[in-house]
Amino acid sequence: MKALVYTGPKEMTFRDEAMPEPKDGEVLVQIGAVGICGSDLHAYLGHDERRPAPLILGHEGAGIVRSSASDQHSDLDGQAVVINPLVSCGTCGYCTTGLTNQCQQREIISMTPRQGAFAEYVAIPRRNLVAVPEGMSLATASLAEPIATGWHAVTKGANLITRPLAESKALVYGGGAVGLAAALSLHAQGCRQIYLAETNALRRDTVNNAAVCTVFDPTSNPLVADNSMDLVVDCVGNKHTRMGASAAVKPGGVIIHVGLQDSLEGLDIRKFTLQEVTFAGSYTYTMQDFRATVEAMHNGALGALDWIQERPLSEGADAFDDLLNGRIAAAKVVLLPEG
Amino acid sequence: MKALVYTGPKEMTFRDEAMPEPKDGEVLVQIGAVGICGSDLHAYLGHDERRPAPLILGHEGAGIVRSSASDQHSDLDGQAVVINPLVSCGTCGYCTTGLTNQCQQREIISMTPRQGAFAEYVAIPRRNLVAVPEGMSLATASLAEPIATGWHAVTKGANLITRPLAESKALVYGGGAVGLAAALSLHAQGCRQIYLAETNALRRDTVNNAAVCTVFDPTSNPLVADNSMDLVVDCVGNKHTRMGASAAVKPGGVIIHVGLQDSLEGLDIRKFTLQEVTFAGSYTYTMQDFRATVEAMHNGALGALDWIQERPLSEGADAFDDLLNGRIAAAKVVLLPEG
Repeated sequence: MKALVYTGPKEMTFRDEAMPEPKDGEVLVQIGAVGICGSDLHAYLGHDERRPAPLILGHEGAGIVRSSASDQHSDLDGQAVVINPLVSCGTCGYCTTGLTNQCQQREIISMTPRQGAFAEYVAIPRRNLVAVPEGMSLATASLAEPIATGWHAVTKGANLITRPLAESKALVYGGGAVGLAAALSLHAQGCRQIYLAETNALRRDTVNNAAVCTVFDPTSNPLVADNSMDLVVDCVGNKHTRMGASAAVKPGGVIIHVGLQDSLEGLDIRKFTLQEVTFAGSYTYTMQDFRATVEAMHNGALGALDWIQERPLSEGADAFDDLLNGRIAAAKVVLLPEG
Repeated sequence: MKALVYTGPKEMTFRDEAMPEPKDGEVLVQIGAVGICGSDLHAYLGHDERRPAPLILGHEGAGIVRSSASDQHSDLDGQAVVINPLVSCGTCGYCTTGLTNQCQQREIISMTPRQGAFAEYVAIPRRNLVAVPEGMSLATASLAEPIATGWHAVTKGANLITRPLAESKALVYGGGAVGLAAALSLHAQGCRQIYLAETNALRRDTVNNAAVCTVFDPTSNPLVADNSMDLVVDCVGNKHTRMGASAAVKPGGVIIHVGLQDSLEGLDIRKFTLQEVTFAGSYTYTMQDFRATVEAMHNGALGALDWIQERPLSEGADAFDDLLNGRIAAAKVVLLPEG
């Protein structure tokens, strides 16, 4: 099959690769669309030791199940599916309580030992599939993964704040796909006072089009008062956004930390203690978040989902270069293997 | 009246002071016993800008209501009470949802503009009083304040972990009154695997006598494995205890941060994010925590409460000096105005 392979720092090579071989309980999915994530870009730059070259990256995939008549999964043949790329053990205490994202044996496609979805085919456990609803394109369906990350963070925040989202003010850091998804999820879950901080002007325009939040540049326009936010969702995760989140959160408020840009400083621990602020890490999503996200995408709660730019997988190397140089306004670039 | 007044760094003066004058809704309480808190020691050293000299310190008081026949509170005359020293506004959103400890207009006796309880009398709102149960001494009753701080932290932790305390492992940092109270509260709320880290050997002995937890010296005996604790309650709050808490907490686990020794470093933010750890500040207690604590003290759920050393208020300066120099094994020194 053809695949876009990370072959070394800043080098993506479109070439022939061996077909993946499904293990017990797994199916083969022919990829129809696969999004590029910030973590793919991180790996592309050679900054992710968990993703050494050569490796097929990509974990935001949707496609069609391809199964033979003799296969135990033949009933799924031809089914359009979106892939939950997080493969958990299914038996530990985390998995049996639904917290599959905390499973310590978890794997994710695009990270050794699992190849990713920048390819014509990927192997994935059957239990990781969610059916694509009638009328949804595979490109749109591939957004389920980043949106589920925002949905999970917002759900976690909603469970930690003391009053409903409908009564609350929320601030999101970051206007990429996950930040935008967090704002859309806040809106879908009832929040009507949503602010989003983004330093890139192209991204601000894209988020503005979604029309669910007040978008601002935190470097030139603070906008948000200190001690004013019930909930802050930090989808960037660096010293500056954590300092901003610490200042903006109100006493008794909640910060959900999703981003992984750096991990060193920025938290106001004294304020957290004296003012009872809760700071909670959020990683990916559970299977239920994933299903709920696909449903919310389908029923319109998350808006038009038109913030995609589609490109052929064969030209994926150019897309990485454009993303790296900030030349893309769309919150998400989706690669199409048959494009 | 006589009072023990903080008159300057490392200087406590037993002298005559003006009688406090109760405002509307307030009563006069004749103090029978008042504990010395770490924050009093902090002020005594001149390290608390919120407590400038001269000031009557002390906020862990119990005593007898003294009211005249013409007073609106005459029905309380002679009642033995323990004082919730946190005076909140009673009308803001925090107060009306019971989160009086997050009220932004809150005051605490022993901090300007309210004089403290190292005195024969203190003025306090009637709504801040809890009746001392039959048979409980005022010295024991004065423990309600530090114990409520531990009770609140544990209650907060119990609400944040995903499984019951009875299934969980908990680690407490600090073997002073609040740390010991946290261990006792964990036990009272069902936890049966409790570890407590304390560097002072005298304090370790006192905590050991309570027989609810495994006590260890974290500097010479790590004891607790990484990623093993469902709940960590940090009653010290410095870089070292936060590093220890970050390492010990398991994926999906909870750290409750109570101590205020310093506020700069020690948190493993990357682990918190990738492993979904929750870090929550805990400050004092709500009125309900205070009442529940007095009830738990009364019904025996918190054990013998025999970790007190009593001293006359007139010799309070010596008690401060002994505490500062680590010469006291008891988890709490209580001063008695009429001793």
